[in-house]
Amino acid sequence: MPADDLVDTVNSVIEVAMPVAAKMGVRVLEVGRGHAVTTVPIEGNGNHFGAIYAGVQFTVAEVLGGAITAGSFDTSAFYPLVKSFDIAFRAMARTDLRAEATLSEDEITRVAAEAAAAGKADFVLEAVVTDSAGTTVATSRGLYQLRAFGR
Amino acid sequence: MPADDLVDTVNSVIEVAMPVAAKMGVRVLEVGRGHAVTTVPIEGNGNHFGAIYAGVQFTVAEVLGGAITAGSFDTSAFYPLVKSFDIAFRAMARTDLRAEATLSEDEITRVAAEAAAAGKADFVLEAVVTDSAGTTVATSRGLYQLRAFGR
Repeated sequence: MPADDLVDTVNSVIEVAMPVAAKMGVRVLEVGRGHAVTTVPIEGNGNHFGAIYAGVQFTVAEVLGGAITAGSFDTSAFYPLVKSFDIAFRAMARTDLRAEATLSEDEITRVAAEAAAAGKADFVLEAVVTDSAGTTVATSRGLYQLRAFGR
Repeated sequence: MPADDLVDTVNSVIEVAMPVAAKMGVRVLEVGRGHAVTTVPIEGNGNHFGAIYAGVQFTVAEVLGGAITAGSFDTSAFYPLVKSFDIAFRAMARTDLRAEATLSEDEITRVAAEAAAAGKADFVLEAVVTDSAGTTVATSRGLYQLRAFGR
């Protein structure tokens, strides 16, 4: 699938699968093999301090697990689940945010092989959330499981 | 302040301070010294699996930090910030959810004294999120900081 079509597809999945995230304005910007970028606007997500609520920062980072799955694994056979998620808030989030994560080629190969053999495979995704000035506002570590449909 | 008035006050603060959480339907049910309970409906928060999105589970647990602060500390002088938050998803969340956390009397005393002396004090809040059958769907560990206004 061309990269732009894949971005559109993943954004459509977010609308259906995570309407709460879509309502926040969380969108995928880039999806590729081992690589995903998401964004969320401050508009509608600010609080009385003019900062983006922690749960929105969680969401813009957490959806990277689904996006990177779409770019890296066979989504006709497998889907991702989040098992645990740790996030550290490092600076006030006062602008639109961008979140990014990568998965190495070795890790993609391991996860795909393990999931094909066992029907499931865990993987860890570390993400960085930055503001419009490039300052890191949050870092996260998500533990996901790639699981075969019907398991 | 009578307990019911405090619950109403905290819910009003959520509306203003965390409109995203209020839009999810996150509400405080109980607030007392060292004790808080929150809830969120499945209605509007379900996905295509009929489950509540992880970011909503994060939110119903995370807001306990603010609620327990209102019940335990001097909110005319101090406010809470969340510094980090770890959550483990243990079962599918298919009903309205309830989240609960407690803070011991010793810990309240320590945090209040440290914040009075230093202008800030960290505290950890462990929360349990349960479904309508009482099954634990998520557990969390939030690191918060009680901070003096103007610091």
